[in-house]
Amino acid sequence: MPSPAVDPAAPSVEAPVDPEPATPVIDDKYVEAGRKLTAMAEEDTRAYDRLAYISDVYGHRLSGSQALEDTIDWALETMREDGLAKVRKEKVMVPHWVRGEEQAAFLAPVERPLPVLTLGMSVGTPRRGITAEVVVVNHVDEIDTLGEQVKGKIVLINMAMPPYDHDHHDSFYGPTVQGRTQGASRAAKYGAKAVLVRSVTAHSLRTLHTGTLVYDEDLPKIPAAAITPEDADLFARMVARGETPKIRLKLGAKLLPDAESGNAIGELTGRELPDEYVVLACHIDSWDVGDGSTDDGSGCLMAMEAALMLKELELIPRRTVRVVLYTNEENGLRGGKAYFEAHADELHVAGLESDSGAGAPWGFGIGGDQAQYDALLPYAPLFEGLGAHNFTLGGGGADISPLTQAGMLGLGLRPDTSHYFDLHHSPADTIDKIAPYHLERNAAAMALMAYILAERELDGPAQPLKVPEPEPEPEPEPEAKAENE
Amino acid sequence: MPSPAVDPAAPSVEAPVDPEPATPVIDDKYVEAGRKLTAMAEEDTRAYDRLAYISDVYGHRLSGSQALEDTIDWALETMREDGLAKVRKEKVMVPHWVRGEEQAAFLAPVERPLPVLTLGMSVGTPRRGITAEVVVVNHVDEIDTLGEQVKGKIVLINMAMPPYDHDHHDSFYGPTVQGRTQGASRAAKYGAKAVLVRSVTAHSLRTLHTGTLVYDEDLPKIPAAAITPEDADLFARMVARGETPKIRLKLGAKLLPDAESGNAIGELTGRELPDEYVVLACHIDSWDVGDGSTDDGSGCLMAMEAALMLKELELIPRRTVRVVLYTNEENGLRGGKAYFEAHADELHVAGLESDSGAGAPWGFGIGGDQAQYDALLPYAPLFEGLGAHNFTLGGGGADISPLTQAGMLGLGLRPDTSHYFDLHHSPADTIDKIAPYHLERNAAAMALMAYILAERELDGPAQPLKVPEPEPEPEPEPEAKAENE
Repeated sequence: MPSPAVDPAAPSVEAPVDPEPATPVIDDKYVEAGRKLTAMAEEDTRAYDRLAYISDVYGHRLSGSQALEDTIDWALETMREDGLAKVRKEKVMVPHWVRGEEQAAFLAPVERPLPVLTLGMSVGTPRRGITAEVVVVNHVDEIDTLGEQVKGKIVLINMAMPPYDHDHHDSFYGPTVQGRTQGASRAAKYGAKAVLVRSVTAHSLRTLHTGTLVYDEDLPKIPAAAITPEDADLFARMVARGETPKIRLKLGAKLLPDAESGNAIGELTGRELPDEYVVLACHIDSWDVGDGSTDDGSGCLMAMEAALMLKELELIPRRTVRVVLYTNEENGLRGGKAYFEAHADELHVAGLESDSGAGAPWGFGIGGDQAQYDALLPYAPLFEGLGAHNFTLGGGGADISPLTQAGMLGLGLRPDTSHYFDLHHSPADTIDKIAPYHLERNAAAMALMAYILAERELDGPAQPLKVPEPEPEPEPEPEAKAENE
Repeated sequence: MPSPAVDPAAPSVEAPVDPEPATPVIDDKYVEAGRKLTAMAEEDTRAYDRLAYISDVYGHRLSGSQALEDTIDWALETMREDGLAKVRKEKVMVPHWVRGEEQAAFLAPVERPLPVLTLGMSVGTPRRGITAEVVVVNHVDEIDTLGEQVKGKIVLINMAMPPYDHDHHDSFYGPTVQGRTQGASRAAKYGAKAVLVRSVTAHSLRTLHTGTLVYDEDLPKIPAAAITPEDADLFARMVARGETPKIRLKLGAKLLPDAESGNAIGELTGRELPDEYVVLACHIDSWDVGDGSTDDGSGCLMAMEAALMLKELELIPRRTVRVVLYTNEENGLRGGKAYFEAHADELHVAGLESDSGAGAPWGFGIGGDQAQYDALLPYAPLFEGLGAHNFTLGGGGADISPLTQAGMLGLGLRPDTSHYFDLHHSPADTIDKIAPYHLERNAAAMALMAYILAERELDGPAQPLKVPEPEPEPEPEPEAKAENE
């Protein structure tokens, strides 16, 4: 229910001048939209049913896979059936990395199998595998300290992700994941043969988590794989006892020629300013383990559902709401880059990305500056009925990062992420982890925020994006990517 | 610290006659023993260090494996070094079941791999595998309802274990595990080709849990394997959509000739009644996944540590404390049966088994009748410093069940089991799940209870066991086993 600050009975006039900072009065239409969307979210499980369908029927959706293209085709057909406008697939060429067989075993001081999961974009090992001693470091920076001591060895980056809760995961993931993204090249610099990385999670049931690495093109490419936190601890105990672990690692991963994929787009045409856009963003690709329901199937179903809810409730805002299901977020961000190249000359007033799973609704991270945050904060009480009323400064998403870097206001949906990294990039990322009513309410929260962003008055005309001069470097910096992948 | 009811300053005399039921006064020596053991438990991580050693160096310990025998040899050597008396291995022939390769895949309505983990003692499939449609039931009893409809099919027993907490797991495990223990024969009766069982856990990260099945010798033996709860849900969704799942299942499991193993025994000789015994029980075998640290390596390290604590603190009770590390609890209970056959004529006053993991100390389950429970309850406050002061009626353990069935008082250590079944029989049962201070405090709780049981006055002389007449049936009933395995 709305808070007293947005009493629907109050007239929509400017707040009276007052010595205290006044709470702005929100126009009735937003209050009414919030009420309708909140009510609708209670009634339906459509987004969940659709997500279960694609998860079960197509399965995971790695770039280059037929399952990804089948799911994109399903999304296009579904958006057409939903009555969205200008539904189309915008072609994007994507990396086609395949995992192949993967196998490892301890050879010393014990002999036993070692479960491994190759990191995305890793090269494979020679067919006979790599046999080497393992050196354990607790942080990727320790590799520089060891220097030539890692030559000929396999380096295990045993950096544990601290136990997270709802308020502490972004700050832990970023630093921890550097071992995964940078480790291979950092170790290759000193002649290491391969890298193992402790899976990036605080809660494991012997669980393996993959994710992309980023090679430094100036250094030899060495293979890299995740191991479970439990086995990382085992290596550490061996070393603490003065033993020298030795393993054999066989990885069949390889990179095939780029494959054709595409961003799937559908629109709710704005009633007054159809050439100004609010983007509802997600990524439709996933890792090739689990079914990708929480990363990021749920985000795509929320975005599709949000547009459909607005349409069904006849909440057509002034600007166009454009749903973009980006391809290849996980191992290339080619969808995000291609969209930017194709659409940088259009007027983008805001983008809202959902790529943090589908826990209970909690709120939004709001990018841009303090003034942009302050301008949205008065709308927060409208989200109380959905539980999504916590607005924090700072937000966006990987797919819309080329847009936000060019000046677009970026927002990120923030569900409860207490368990998100338990599942993230692991075989446990499956549809059963999602509650239908969480998914539907998150969709309604996206719909309401999209309505506000696409409807509200701005201080002046929409500004074009600041498109940077083309640079010679084709690849983004590893650190910039690591934060969001 | 002791409660007022056991004020150490009070003289050890009988409580005064009073119209209200009097709280019995506990003799100083027990209070003092509790104090010393509690203090000792705070200082040491010996039990944990030893458990980490065997878990890391030998690994899991399935009956028939070299690792089991190596660990038993280590335990014998360690108990000798600890100065226990009459340390010996009592030979037991055990089943030698081996898992072999295991592989499964959906063939319809989708094609994708299906992770499986063969149930212990299962037969294998033919080398080419079994290809069949899957029929889903939610309870093992539904197989009887379907009857001949399961003929030629693979039956999935999709009974979910309810979410458990500390006070609710025994009551959920027993009913749920029936599908695993009985399912194969119940389905074979109607001509099913194989059985799949939803892993017995409420919390899964795509986790597989094995455990034994028990075949009805009068029915064809069909293979059986566990699948993850997530994949069980997937089958259920397929069926709900009107689809008919079809899979291929290849299991290489087989039963080899019995192997030689043994119960590892060491004693703390009683100072007055050395021929009366209090058994500290655990099982040293484990499943062949994880490292068996919580099921039941921790129980064995607690029992060994308990005896050593008593010895080091010179708390030598009147009766003999006999540590018995039973072999083959998981898939045969041969250790428990062999011990009973060899020792049934000895005076066993009590047995205390630890086979519920190594969570935070909580208390004891006390078997026998209400009078036996009432006689022990006054000692409960002595366990408050260890957190193990919750005494509940009913308890014992699988290994000592032949003894308790013959009249011996049986107790079970009850740590916090909120997460025990997350790990139970799964690859996630590893040493890192255990806190050193929990293990040591549980050991101290076992030591104190052993001291009380072996020291206290009884109402009359110790009674011999009631050894049953030998029966022609060689195997225990499935249900009796299922409760404890």
